[in-house]
Parts: sequence; C-alpha cells; structure tokens
Amino acid sequence: MADYFKGNTEYFPGIKKISYEGPKSDNPLAFKYYDPEKTVGGKKMKDHLRFAVAYWHSFCADGSDPFGSATHVHPWTADASSPMEAAEHKLDAAFEFFTKLGAEYYCFHDRDMAPEGSSPAESEKNLMAIVAKAKERQKATGVNLLWGTANMFNHPRFMNGAATNPEFKVVALAASQIKTAIDATIELGGEGYTFWGGREGYMSLLNTDLKREKDHLAMILTMARDYARGRGFKGMFYIEPKPMEPSKHQYDFDVETVAGFLRHYGLDKDFRMNIEANHAELAGHDFFHELETAASMGLFGSVDANRGDPMNGWDTDQFPTSYTETALAMYAILRAGGFTTGGLNFDAKIRRNSVDPADLFEAHIGGMDAFAAGLIAAQRMIDDGKLSGFVKQRYASFDSGEGAKFEKGGMSLQELAALGTVYGNAGITSGKQERLENIVNQYLLNL
Amino acid sequence: MADYFKGNTEYFPGIKKISYEGPKSDNPLAFKYYDPEKTVGGKKMKDHLRFAVAYWHSFCADGSDPFGSATHVHPWTADASSPMEAAEHKLDAAFEFFTKLGAEYYCFHDRDMAPEGSSPAESEKNLMAIVAKAKERQKATGVNLLWGTANMFNHPRFMNGAATNPEFKVVALAASQIKTAIDATIELGGEGYTFWGGREGYMSLLNTDLKREKDHLAMILTMARDYARGRGFKGMFYIEPKPMEPSKHQYDFDVETVAGFLRHYGLDKDFRMNIEANHAELAGHDFFHELETAASMGLFGSVDANRGDPMNGWDTDQFPTSYTETALAMYAILRAGGFTTGGLNFDAKIRRNSVDPADLFEAHIGGMDAFAAGLIAAQRMIDDGKLSGFVKQRYASFDSGEGAKFEKGGMSLQELAALGTVYGNAGITSGKQERLENIVNQYLLNL
Amino acid sequence: MADYFKGNTEYFPGIKKISYEGPKSDNPLAFKYYDPEKTVGGKKMKDHLRFAVAYWHSFCADGSDPFGSATHVHPWTADASSPMEAAEHKLDAAFEFFTKLGAEYYCFHDRDMAPEGSSPAESEKNLMAIVAKAKERQKATGVNLLWGTANMFNHPRFMNGAATNPEFKVVALAASQIKTAIDATIELGGEGYTFWGGREGYMSLLNTDLKREKDHLAMILTMARDYARGRGFKGMFYIEPKPMEPSKHQYDFDVETVAGFLRHYGLDKDFRMNIEANHAELAGHDFFHELETAASMGLFGSVDANRGDPMNGWDTDQFPTSYTETALAMYAILRAGGFTTGGLNFDAKIRRNSVDPADLFEAHIGGMDAFAAGLIAAQRMIDDGKLSGFVKQRYASFDSGEGAKFEKGGMSLQELAALGTVYGNAGITSGKQERLENIVNQYLLNL
Amino acid sequence: MADYFKGNTEYFPGIKKISYEGPKSDNPLAFKYYDPEKTVGGKKMKDHLRFAVAYWHSFCADGSDPFGSATHVHPWTADASSPMEAAEHKLDAAFEFFTKLGAEYYCFHDRDMAPEGSSPAESEKNLMAIVAKAKERQKATGVNLLWGTANMFNHPRFMNGAATNPEFKVVALAASQIKTAIDATIELGGEGYTFWGGREGYMSLLNTDLKREKDHLAMILTMARDYARGRGFKGMFYIEPKPMEPSKHQYDFDVETVAGFLRHYGLDKDFRMNIEANHAELAGHDFFHELETAASMGLFGSVDANRGDPMNGWDTDQFPTSYTETALAMYAILRAGGFTTGGLNFDAKIRRNSVDPADLFEAHIGGMDAFAAGLIAAQRMIDDGKLSGFVKQRYASFDSGEGAKFEKGGMSLQELAALGTVYGNAGITSGKQERLENIVNQYLLNL
Repeated sequence: MADYFKGNTEYFPGIKKISYEGPKSDNPLAFKYYDPEKTVGGKKMKDHLRFAVAYWHSFCADGSDPFGSATHVHPWTADASSPMEAAEHKLDAAFEFFTKLGAEYYCFHDRDMAPEGSSPAESEKNLMAIVAKAKERQKATGVNLLWGTANMFNHPRFMNGAATNPEFKVVALAASQIKTAIDATIELGGEGYTFWGGREGYMSLLNTDLKREKDHLAMILTMARDYARGRGFKGMFYIEPKPMEPSKHQYDFDVETVAGFLRHYGLDKDFRMNIEANHAELAGHDFFHELETAASMGLFGSVDANRGDPMNGWDTDQFPTSYTETALAMYAILRAGGFTTGGLNFDAKIRRNSVDPADLFEAHIGGMDAFAAGLIAAQRMIDDGKLSGFVKQRYASFDSGEGAKFEKGGMSLQELAALGTVYGNAGITSGKQERLENIVNQYLLNL
Repeated sequence: MADYFKGNTEYFPGIKKISYEGPKSDNPLAFKYYDPEKTVGGKKMKDHLRFAVAYWHSFCADGSDPFGSATHVHPWTADASSPMEAAEHKLDAAFEFFTKLGAEYYCFHDRDMAPEGSSPAESEKNLMAIVAKAKERQKATGVNLLWGTANMFNHPRFMNGAATNPEFKVVALAASQIKTAIDATIELGGEGYTFWGGREGYMSLLNTDLKREKDHLAMILTMARDYARGRGFKGMFYIEPKPMEPSKHQYDFDVETVAGFLRHYGLDKDFRMNIEANHAELAGHDFFHELETAASMGLFGSVDANRGDPMNGWDTDQFPTSYTETALAMYAILRAGGFTTGGLNFDAKIRRNSVDPADLFEAHIGGMDAFAAGLIAAQRMIDDGKLSGFVKQRYASFDSGEGAKFEKGGMSLQELAALGTVYGNAGITSGKQERLENIVNQYLLNL
Repeated sequence: MADYFKGNTEYFPGIKKISYEGPKSDNPLAFKYYDPEKTVGGKKMKDHLRFAVAYWHSFCADGSDPFGSATHVHPWTADASSPMEAAEHKLDAAFEFFTKLGAEYYCFHDRDMAPEGSSPAESEKNLMAIVAKAKERQKATGVNLLWGTANMFNHPRFMNGAATNPEFKVVALAASQIKTAIDATIELGGEGYTFWGGREGYMSLLNTDLKREKDHLAMILTMARDYARGRGFKGMFYIEPKPMEPSKHQYDFDVETVAGFLRHYGLDKDFRMNIEANHAELAGHDFFHELETAASMGLFGSVDANRGDPMNGWDTDQFPTSYTETALAMYAILRAGGFTTGGLNFDAKIRRNSVDPADLFEAHIGGMDAFAAGLIAAQRMIDDGKLSGFVKQRYASFDSGEGAKFEKGGMSLQELAALGTVYGNAGITSGKQERLENIVNQYLLNL
Repeated sequence: MADYFKGNTEYFPGIKKISYEGPKSDNPLAFKYYDPEKTVGGKKMKDHLRFAVAYWHSFCADGSDPFGSATHVHPWTADASSPMEAAEHKLDAAFEFFTKLGAEYYCFHDRDMAPEGSSPAESEKNLMAIVAKAKERQKATGVNLLWGTANMFNHPRFMNGAATNPEFKVVALAASQIKTAIDATIELGGEGYTFWGGREGYMSLLNTDLKREKDHLAMILTMARDYARGRGFKGMFYIEPKPMEPSKHQYDFDVETVAGFLRHYGLDKDFRMNIEANHAELAGHDFFHELETAASMGLFGSVDANRGDPMNGWDTDQFPTSYTETALAMYAILRAGGFTTGGLNFDAKIRRNSVDPADLFEAHIGGMDAFAAGLIAAQRMIDDGKLSGFVKQRYASFDSGEGAKFEKGGMSLQELAALGTVYGNAGITSGKQERLENIVNQYLLNL
C-alpha cells in the first residue's frame, strides 16, 4: 500500500501506520489481536473481517448532541476556502486515516462526501466531482468502497419521509438522489449499496397510511434494484434494520420485519441485511440473535459494527468492545459462510468528549482488536465443534424415522397425534445452557 | 338469557346481574358506559365488542407470582372431592360469572377446563367430559365460545418447546393435545382457535437451531389447519404475538414477525392475529400500532384486551383502563371492518391483593366500560371523518397524475428521478400531530 | 393585559388572543377546558395552574435532531442584522406569544435570551441588556418570570461537566455564569431559580471520581444559594431530576436520589424539586410517583409539563395530552398544597415536522386544556374524598392503640413480636386497586 | 474440610469435590480460574471472594415460572415422610453441595430452611430445630453462614407488605418473624443479616400512603438493629436494593434511594448495601455503577452475584458469566477495601430446563470462575495503576491552589466567579474513554 498522504497536508501528524504488536503491548496505537496477514481457518484475518471506516462518523460528525454543540474540530474543514475544497480536504484526511489504520474499506453517504447543491443537478455534479477524486485515491491506496448510500434523513424535505413521504414530489427527489448515489457507488466499484430508513416510518400513526407508505417503499427499492442491475451492478443491496430514532417507529424495525417485507415484495433475491449491534438492542434483540435470524433465512449480508449501552435507550453508536459479543457475532458470520460482498463497517463514533486526534485511532483499534479476538475464538468454536455438535445431537430425533418423516411434511395431524400416546418422561432433557455459556467463555479466555 | 345458576351452588352470592346505570352512577357493580343493547353506528354495542371472559385468569389463576404463593381462594375448587368434580364446579362458577356479568363469550385452554390425566387418552377423556357439560351450559345461557386453545407451556414436557421442541416425541404429544383441543373447540361451536407460543422460542441461542424450529412450527400449524378444515371447522385460526416471557425470545415476536412467518409458510389465508395490548408493549410497540399494522396487511383477527405497565418489563396483564388506548383501538378495529369471528377477550387478571369476590366483577366492569367508551369515541371519529379526511388529503398527490402512475408501478427510477429536478419547498408541510392529538382527546372528553 | 405586540412586528400574524370556547368548540385555536378566570376549589384556574412557556423550546429550538437539520424557521431571527438584534426580536416574538396564548409566566436559560459573548464579561453584558428589555415587556404585559437558569450543557467547555468538571477552571466559569443568571433572575423578579444538570454526571465511570464530583456539585449549589440569599432572593431553588441524556448517567437521577443528596448536604431547606414527566419515565417511574414521592418528603416545588413516549427511550419532550396523567398529577399537587412559587412550565416542543406557526399555539392549547381538565377532575377527587377516605381507612390500625404506639417509636422488637402470635387471616384484605382505577376514570369522563 | 456427606445419603452421586484444573481443562466439573489457595494481591482467592451458595435458589426453587410448573425434582424432598424430615434432608443435600463445590459460605431465608408452622411459635420451633442441625453441619464442614434473612414476601399475609403493611397486625407478625430469623442468624454465627423488601412497596399509588409506609419501614429496621445489637450481634445489616418485582415499585429502588433513606433515618452506621447485578440493571444502572456509588458513600457491604438479561425486563437471576462485568465489580470491591463481613452470594438460579444434577455444579463453577478471573484482572488494574492514575491526574487542579481552596469550602460564589473571567480553551480535554475501555479489555485477555 502506497504511503498515500505524502505530498498532501498530513491531518493526523505524529501518528504512523498502526501495526500489530501483540496482546502484551502497552502501546495504545498498536493492534493487540488484529494481525491482518495472519491466517485463521485458512484465510487471512483481513479477508475475514473486511473492516470499513464510516465516512460520516469519522470525518463529518462534530461531537454535537441534542443538548450540546460541536466539540470535534476538523482541520480538513478549517483550512478550506469553499465547501468543495473542504470536501476534497476531507477526502485527503479520510484516506490518510484509512491507510494509517490499515482499513481495507470505507462506506459513505452522498452528502458525507460532497455538499448538497442548490438543485439536484448541482448536488449530482458536486458528488461526481469528488467521486472522481476518490477513485484516484482508491487506486493509489488500494482502499475500496464497501458500500455507498444516500442520506435521505438530514434535510428538512425528508422530515415526513423519503420514499414514504406523503408528497409525491419528495419521492421523486429521493429517487433522483438514489440514482446519483447508485451511480457514484458503481463508479467507485462499491461492493454494495445500502438503505437505512431513518425517516421511513412515522412520528404519529394519526396522520399515517401504513399500507400506502410501505407499498411506496417497496416500489422505490424495486426501481432502484432494477436501475442498478440495468447498469450492470453486481453488488448486493442491503437494508439496515432499526426500530426507531429519529422516527418514533421505523418500518425496517428488525431482521424479522425486514425479512417479511422483502419476501412479500419479491425483493429477497437482491437484498440482504446490514445488521447493526446497537439497532438490534434498540429493537429488543441481542446482536447475535439478529445475525443468526438473518442467517437462518439466508438473508445475512453485512454488519454495522458498534455497540449500544443497554442502560441508555438511544443509538449511542459506541465502538465495539465486548469480546463475548464479537466472538458470538463472528461465530454466526463464519457459519453463515463469512462475508462475501459485506464486511465490518464501524458505524461508531468517538464520545463527544474524546477530542484528541488519536482518539479516533484508538477507538478503531479497540474495535478491530475486539473483532480479531472474536474471530480467533469463533474459529476455535467451529474447529472443535463442541457447540454445533451439541445442537446437532439435540435435534437428532428428526434426522431419521418418524421424526424425519414429520419434518418432510409426510404426516397428518391425526397420524402425528397417534404417535403421542404416552407421556412418560418426554421432553425432560437438560438444555445445558450453563455448560454452553461456560464453554464460550473458555474460548475467549484462551486466545 | 336464562338465570342459569339457579339450582346450582351460587359462587358469587350477593352479586346480581350487572346492569347499565350510566356515567353518573356510583355503584361499583354497574356499567357506566357499556349498555349492551344501545346502538352505535347502526350496530348494538354488544355486537361490536363481543366481550369474552378468559377462563384461565378468572377461574384458574390463584394470585401466585414468582415471589409469592396463592392468595385467591376458589370456593369452586374447595368444595369438590375430585379433580373432575372441581372442574365441573369451576364450570358452574364460570357460567354464573359470565351470565351475571353479561359477557357473550368465553375463551379457554384445554387444561383450564379439565385436569390433565395420566395419559393423552385420559386427558382427552377428561376434557371431552367437561366439554359435554359446557355445551349444556352454553345452550342454557346463550354464552358462546369465542375461541379455544391448548396449554402447551405449563407442563415440564414443554420446557424446551412444544411444536418447536428438539425431541420429536414431544412434538407428537403436542400434536395429540392440539387435535383434542380442536375437537373440543368444534364441539362447542367455537368461532376461532388460537395459538400462543409461550415456549415456542428459546432460552439460549447456543443450543438452538432456529431454522429447524421455525420449520417445525409452521408444519404443526399447517397440519392443525388441515385437520380442522377437514372436520369442517369454518372458524378463524389466530396467532397471538408475544416477544418474550416465559422464553427469553419467542418466535411470534410481534405482528410484523408473525405476518412474515405466515406469508412465508403459506398460512396467511387461514390465520389472523390475536393482538394483546400488553404483548405489544413488551415488543416495543403501542397497542394501536399493532392493530393498525395487522389491519394494513389484512391480518387483523381478534384482541386480548388488557394493559401492561410501561414501567414494569413483564406481562402484568392488568384490566384495560386507558380510554385513549381503547378509543384508538376501536378506531383501528372499526376501520378494519369490526370483529367478524373475533372479539375482546379479557386476558387480564385482578391483582394478587384483590381478594374480594367482587373484585373480579369490578375489574371486568372497568374493562368493559373502557371499551364501550372507546367505541363511542371511535364511532364519532369515523362519523365526522376529521382524522381520516386529513390522512386522505395528505397523500392526495398519489391519487392522480404522475403520483398515481408511480404508485401503480409504471415508472422506472430514471423517469421518477427526472421528475425530481427542483428542490423548492418540497416536503415542508406540517404533519399537524399536535392538532390531531388534541382532536382525539376532544372525542374522548365529549362522550 | 395590554395588547403588547401592537407597534412591534407581529410574528404570529393571523392569530388572535386564544379564548375559552368550551368542550364542544371545533376551533383548534380555542381552549376547550382552560377557562382562566373560572373558579375551581375556591381559586381561579390560572392561579392554580400558573402556566409558563419555555423560552428554549418555543423560540430557540429549530427542529433539528441527531439525524436531521433545522426545520423550524424563526422570522424573529431572520429579520435581524446582529445577534443582539435577533435576541430582541426573539423577545418580541416571545411576549407576543405569551400574551396571545394567555400564559402568566415564562422560563429561560441565560443563553436562550442573549448570545454568549467572547468573554464572561461580554456574555453578562449581553444578558443584562436583554434582561432590561424583558423587564419592560414584563411590565407592559403582566407576564412574569417563573424561574431562570443557566445553560451549562451546550458549550464544549462543559462537555466534561460544569460544577462537576474535573478541571477547576471550568467550575469557576460555571460559577461566573450562575452568578449572572441569578442576577438576571432577581432583576426580573423571578419566583425561582432552577438547576438541571445535563452534564453533571458521567460518560464513563472509568474516568470519574464520583465522590469528588458530587461534593463539588453540592459546594456550587451551596455557594449559589448563599449568594442569592445574600442578595435578598426569596424565591425557591429547584433541582430538576433526570437520569441520563445527554450524559450516560446524571447525578440528579430521580426524586429519591436528589432528596438523599439535598438532605446529605444540608440543602433541603432551600431546594425543592422541579419534576418533569418525561424525565420521570426515563428513570423508570410514573410522573405521579415522582410527584407523590417529592410531596411525601416535603420537597415538591414545580413541574416541567410534558410527556415522553414509553416506546422511545429518549427525551421526546412532547406536549402533555394524557388526561389521566394530568388528573393524577394535579391530584398530587393539590394535596401537596398547590403551587406556591412553582408552576406548570411547558418544557415541551412541537414535533420536527410541525412547521406551521399555528402548531406552537395548538400544542400549548392542548397541554393547557389537559391540565385544566386534570385540575377539574382532581378537585372533584378531593371534594368527594373517596380516594383519600379509602387510604385513610386502610391505615386506621395505626391511628390508635398498639399501632399508634408502634408508629410513635414506643416499642421494642420483642414487644412488637410478642403481639404477633397468631397468624389467622392477618393481611388478607383486598387493596381494591381495580375499583380505585375505575373511580379515577369516572372523574375524568364526567368533567 | 471433612468429607461431610459420608454416612448420609449422597444426593449428588457421581460428583466429586470440584478442583482447580486451569484454563485449558475441558472438564466441565473443574475450575478453570478459581484456585482457592492461590494468592492474589497478598491474599488467598477464597478470602477475597468469600463465595456463598443461596439456599433458596439451589435447594428450594423448583423450576416453576409464571407460565410453567416445577421441572426440578429434588431427591431430598422426595425421600422424606414429613416436612421437617424433608428440611433435614435438604440440609444434608445443601452441605453436600457446599463441600463438593468448595463454597465457604451460604445464605438462607428462614422459610428455606424450615417449614412454616401453624403459628409463629411453631414456625420458630421448626426453624430453631433445623438451625441446631445446621450448626452441627457447619462445625463438621467448616462452611459458615454469610447472612440470614426472613422471607416476608411469599405468604399471602404479606401481599400488601410486611413492615409496610397497612394493617398493624401484619407488621407485628413480620416483627415476630424477623426476631426469630435474627436469633437463628446469631445462633449460626452469621456475619450479616439482610433485608430484601420484595413487598415493601406498592402495587398502586392510589391506595398507598408513602410517608407512613416508609416511616414504618424505618421503624422496623431500627427496632431490628437495636434488638440484634442488644443480643451482642456484631455483624452487618444489609439492605438489598431492587426497583420493582414482585411489587410495581419497591422502596429500596437502588443504591442512591437506599442511601438517602438510611441517612435520613439515622441507619447508615449499621446498614450497608447488598448489591445485586440483576437488580441494578432493572433500576437502569450498571452493576459497576451501583458498586461504585455505594463505595463512594461508604455504604458498600456485600454482593448478590448474578446477571440479568438486558433484553428481558424481569429478574432472570442467571449465573454471572461476563468477565468484563466481574472484573469491574472486583475492581470496585478491592478499591472499597474488599469484603469484610460480606461476600459473593450466588443469588442465581439454573434455567428451568437445566434439569441435570450436574447443572447446578456447572452453573456455580462458571460463576466462580468468572469472579476469579475478574479478581485477577482487577488486581492487575490496581497494581499497575493506569486507570486510577489517569483519574487522579484528571482532577489534579483540585489538589492545590485555588481548586483545593474551593473544594474545602473556602470560597463564595463571587470569589469563584471572579476566577472565571476568560473562556479560552477551558474544559476541552479528552476524557480518553476509548483508551480506558481498551485497557480494561487488555487486562482481561491477558489473564
């Protein structure tokens, strides 16, 4: 990988390329577990994990929150004389960060990368100009685009929804924005295109036509899919479930809801889930649950890697630090076949009061180490087969005989009921939950 | 309606048939709003509301909770010399209660009505013996069965699931129990048959095969439907969503999850939702949301009328008292066409420390008044059309022209995007949420 | 009340003074229940309710949220050529709103009213200049200041806390800001001064010294009290409990926590609680609970009137609409002696998509009607004494004899134990919860 | 330790004394981290951790839940011919379990150990008879009593409260029960006596006099303290906070609430907190928060070691498995001086479907290993001082000069405000949260 940022202004001076130093290192700017070229289960760590940096949190967000103004000062914005120049400086800062960190991928919204213009045409022009520069930097650095998306939640025009807006004109503007964002994604060789519907929901049911809004959403997704496929896009489309916030209720509530929606509207061949830990939790689910649920339906795609705080009821988007959670996540992902077009995108932000430039690095390092450690543990779980062997054995009565006949659909209720004539001790078999939990812990502590 | 309980032991002595006395009455044993024969929107209140009493909470539950033993003493059990005699006394008490209260319907689980025997055959015999007696009492009183169901969560054999049990033998026993419960429901002329999957879920994902369990669940539902239809059952099948408790996670999480499941397995023609307010809340939804969501998909069926406590994270199953909630519920139900085979079943229990015999009456009276008041308010909402008119107007841009063309699927993304070329003030239209909320309140206060 | 805004630019053109039209009016810009001069329980409604408008939500907030930019356009800002001119125009708009709405009071943070300067001295100068103008407008309109406060959460300098900041210099800056805000409050004849500690808490326990931070907080409160009393301030000090947001955890978690804190540090003579419905809920409490708890400890002071959404885990600050909640709130408040220096401050904001100028009026009207209806119901509860009579009777065994002796502290454990020698049926007395809930509903529906 | 159970019926046949085998062992019945005699920070692990087994969950609870009947069969009950014989067999089983597991302590409620009689006198007689036998077994095995308590939540007489019951007679019966439980605790050399107020709260505020109930609670605690001290009891009294369940609201909501209560009623010299992880979570707090909060007020005492499920809103009482949580807990405990009279009591239960006798052992082993690993990590945190050093430095401006003067109370608001005259960059210092989180993880992964 070329040292991209030479010749440009260095926006993170004093920070060198992050390297692996092992679990005992006390260098906060070194990896303890993530060793990109190390092979785990026959594949390099970096190819398993496919880390991506989120453009919005890392280079656009400014530390403001509903009760406080910006705390994060961005030198890449400060030294520019126009919004477009600022956008290019931000691009420099981003690629400097990607390469110093050693991330293979990034993700962006259209408006993260280039400023909105005074018309859709100008917005498109702005975006495509920066995309051209991003393409050069991708080539120079080897960093690639995991997926692109369109920001259809920030602007006031989307306050009542984008694809689900009650005004047709806004739906048309959304379509225009999606088309451009798809074009940008294709131009940058993006491996996916994501929909997160922050305003696709409602603030009040009293003014909402649920059926019409969901039909419109499906229509737009269908049209977007057809457009991109028509342009030769081979990547995956993702829906990112989230139950609420900013809307009171969002249509892409959780994996099950989205699965039902995709199947109902015939979109389940082209769309997969982009699953976020924090969103899972807000919907009342463990991250592991959402991953396993998507995988069990063949709809797992990619991950927005972060964590929430179960004591806080909003999207805190913290960097992942729970090794138990990352181990179970990687266990689900590996068993689902690993990432193909997807990856681990850090949809995570440093805290408002983390104002040192190094904090952004340390936060990503912590997250990457958490998933690297999780990967190692998960591979061991798979290799020794204790967990999966237990599960397989638990359902063995359906592998042959009457159980297998039942499973294949070859029985009527009468026939099946006729087999259930003696109570005996049926069903009184321990689930061994505590043992399995201890086993998971042991993998983690023996990295 | 005959005075059924004459000649039997009177289990609620001193309490007469509850009558309507109007909003100013200070008789705790009188209806303030529920006036069964009164016409609202061209239909009698009783035919709108179709109130049912839940056999389990009202005649079986004993006030015990995870930290305390029974507080509710049931005279109908105390004066019996055998479990079957106790079951018949309970039946007497139940029909005395139904008729004194003026409920048109009841609902039961097999095990509420008759004790489990030492074998499936004996359990069936027990149930059918009591069913024969129930049939007589139905005839004598005019009280009918809203729906029946099988209790497949209490017995230890179901601790790992019923239809989703990892042991085939338990699935067969579950099938046997379902078959008998369907037979009982048919015998009693039940208008529906309900599935609530308290153990159809998991305690730990570590020992669970999600796909296999959900496939098995669908298989059993399919077999049950085929069996009942084969026996000529014309009633509706219901799934009752609940996200958790007693399991850590249940497959019938919420309306959207169940809708996806029913459609995926081709069950959406015969199955509808039985929606419970408290379960909605546990899943992170308003009761109104769940009703509207089911209605918008054509899957609304029946209601388990109760409320939870948003400050307590478990199923408190309290009697409904929020007139705002009942008004919005009835507004959703009336717009969905009202109840056909379904009704308002009080899946609600008096508090553990409500130990007066009259408490059971007062609790039901409060719930019936809440829904009667809600019905009156809802009918007014419909009659004057302020709310629906606002919503219709809000989406008017899709009723004709390009908007209508979009909605019908006649556009490509390029065409639609081409319509979105000027930002202007698109989308900056007030949702008028506060006005609509004020209007809803006004209906309620002007009953 | 003078028609204040004549001669000024009218910022809410087309909206006249809101008047009472009664429950049947379908004018969205009229009161249905709030009839300011009407006497309830021997006192005018307006003197019971003491409505205040919150300067921040109504004249400063712009509809932005964590995922979206401003939607509310403020003409009073747009037509100004400097921040100080904008501040005066905002003041005009605010007093126009107060008088048209008929609110008797308002509340403000220093930074709502006047822009921060480049130094504490300039900030003070800015504030006092606007305060002088506010004083004139108060005199002209008869609208008074319920309480003032200092915004010590928005600026980056407070990102690690204000009084609890780990840097002494920030604590000194906070003190300087508090001093000025107290001066402003005194100048405007404010009846109270409030502390809400949005940043007085922690983001991470790992970097926090709990004891030291709480000691510092108490020190600042003590110093502020001493300063204001020294200047002759007779008003009340308020702490406004909130459990979290923006901080992960805030020290003023709930009423019990704050009561323990005030008593421990000897502040309970001068400080009372300003209780907010939405904050109560975020802490796991009903609004009624927090009010009753504060009242039971003699620490009830004022109210931030709003509501949250129990399905959303953040501070939604919606306008109050639940008549049950307002009735119980007013029941608690009346029994606590009613408001003395406190009042009902609408710490509530219109939704982001409520962009019509009338929405702000309609939202306040809805909230005022909700509390007016609640007041009427609460007064009836008190007048007929059904609820309080039941409670009094329930504890009657402590009013005389051995029970009274116990309550006065005149018994040892041995003596008391010696009285408990027979189990009998002790304690098996119904709590009559369902009856009491029905009674509460009846008051509401018979307004 | 003597092999106690020789000569008795062996209730856990086939299970030998659990021994330490180290992190690589794949024996589910061996410790991986808990090595009792191993020295950590100059003290044996067993003396740090002081593990106790909870009599109720391990020997009384039967796997029933609100939706299901008993699944756990207890041989010690099955082979007895009377309740008192069953109680003695249970005692045998318990001491067999304690000694095989290697727990140093146990905890009990009066009713766990001996059946309630038909009168307080008979209940006392029953309990003291079993206590005499327990004393022998304690002597024979070296297992000691960590604390005793009285079960005042199960019996119907307490359905409206025990010390807070509105009927004086019930309060007297509660006193009688407490007196006996204190006597039993003293007789067994218990190191503490605990109050958990499952029914000391309310089901409905409508029928509750908060002030009177809390006064009564304080009175009973005072009387109990005086009685025990009068009998020479030197142990600690504990309050165990829990916010709700079984009551809607409990008075001992959380650590802050209880601290305020104890201080207000002058009980903070004799009472400390017994903090439970699951209860902390139900109150909206991290376990670590509750421990640190109690420690910061000098009120930390003991721990009920378990965990909840943040996705389930009730008391799941699972065995602790999160090494991050145990590490932070032990870090708080060690810094608070470690346990003196307190310890780690496993108030945890195996899942309803964990029906193998070995499950109880494996669950405890998992919990003990979790705390042993946490202890090792916590000691390292203390030894290298990275975390505490960071915190100390963060507040250094209060260690000398004006900051120290402020902290000592030597300043007025005017003086302090006069120090805050320049904004500058005050407060813009990173909290380094991400770095500190990474450091905590590193301790854990390097055990």
